[in-house]
Amino acid sequence: MRGKLIVFEGVEGCGKTTQLKRSQQWFIDSGWQSLLQAKGYVSQLITTREPGGTDLGVKVRQLLLEQSIAEAMQSRAELLLYAADRAQHVDGYLTPQLHQSTLILCDRYTDSTIAYQGYGRGIDLKLISQLNDIATGGLESDLTLWLDLDAETGLARTRQRGTLDRIEQADVSFHHRVQQGFTELAQRYPQRITHIDASPPETEVAEQIQAVLSQKFSEWYGVERIKDKG
Amino acid sequence: MRGKLIVFEGVEGCGKTTQLKRSQQWFIDSGWQSLLQAKGYVSQLITTREPGGTDLGVKVRQLLLEQSIAEAMQSRAELLLYAADRAQHVDGYLTPQLHQSTLILCDRYTDSTIAYQGYGRGIDLKLISQLNDIATGGLESDLTLWLDLDAETGLARTRQRGTLDRIEQADVSFHHRVQQGFTELAQRYPQRITHIDASPPETEVAEQIQAVLSQKFSEWYGVERIKDKG
Repeated sequence: MRGKLIVFEGVEGCGKTTQLKRSQQWFIDSGWQSLLQAKGYVSQLITTREPGGTDLGVKVRQLLLEQSIAEAMQSRAELLLYAADRAQHVDGYLTPQLHQSTLILCDRYTDSTIAYQGYGRGIDLKLISQLNDIATGGLESDLTLWLDLDAETGLARTRQRGTLDRIEQADVSFHHRVQQGFTELAQRYPQRITHIDASPPETEVAEQIQAVLSQKFSEWYGVERIKDKG
Repeated sequence: MRGKLIVFEGVEGCGKTTQLKRSQQWFIDSGWQSLLQAKGYVSQLITTREPGGTDLGVKVRQLLLEQSIAEAMQSRAELLLYAADRAQHVDGYLTPQLHQSTLILCDRYTDSTIAYQGYGRGIDLKLISQLNDIATGGLESDLTLWLDLDAETGLARTRQRGTLDRIEQADVSFHHRVQQGFTELAQRYPQRITHIDASPPETEVAEQIQAVLSQKFSEWYGVERIKDKG
């Protein structure tokens, strides 16, 4: 498949969503889009997210984040809802798009489940791995950009944005464990996960990401690296 | 645990829900309730169902049955939603109730997932079994009453009730496969699953169920069998 799945991961407030949008714009501005389209390697670039990348996912996301249920959310139920969102996303959207040579920028994927539910909530990592396999049907990211930021800085940025959802409201130690999860995942899967220092200003983080993406495009499609703008 | 999980299973229109309510009333009228409460064996009898036995479950049930999402429901996503409903039900409701010596009458449980998603939709039975284990955390029913009715008769009864949900609208061959699933499960787990002929009139079916329940109460609690009303 010429389509590629590029995932943005990291703690709350690490800048994933902002950087994902910047990358989308940069893909056009840098000339990569016209080059890859002209050669017929890539049809388009789209952005999506988990949870909430499908219509079912939007409804599942509401259940997960909006404290809309009367009783306490049980941790295995939460895990299964994330998996349902993922299965719908993979089978109904990601896989068909990849078959159409689409580049996909996805806000969170399987590593978030390991970091949040496994390291954060302490759910058995084998169980999570089993469910990730079921939900993805084996679809792994081609590249995961881990936006590495310490938990406190991330939470401080999130608080500035206003109201916090159920996950964001969890105590600081939870977010520390999540950050530890991403750190261990990056050590364990260096081929798939690329470390990005998310502490500098937004434009500097964007430049790091652009350098990685340019290098990957060259590698994947065997085309000459073009000179990036700026 | 002195609480017991009693599950009612069968195809659409087999009379599960009606019989479950009749059993609840009979439990009081027959004298079993006062006997088991007086001896301190049982605190109460409750009825519940899957999907939809919790507040989360009610919302998941809406997603599953009301065709409320824009895109096609992917079969693995559907399976995971049923599992999420089940995990919430088991951990948040069934297990706490069983610890309080409650008798639970539950409308559908794990066998429905095997019959509908496995036999009906053709999803890998090992995958379903794996997900049932994850969702239940190993909680099996103490008794499953399988209300055996051929698929056509069941569907005809359902149609008389009025509007059909997404499952009920599936073609007849789907419901045949579901019925075949229940048949094979009953052959495989004769200890747990008791066959009830659901084709006679309602009162006769109720009598079969009452006889089974009386025998099980005697067996579970070691009390003399009392004379049932009628």
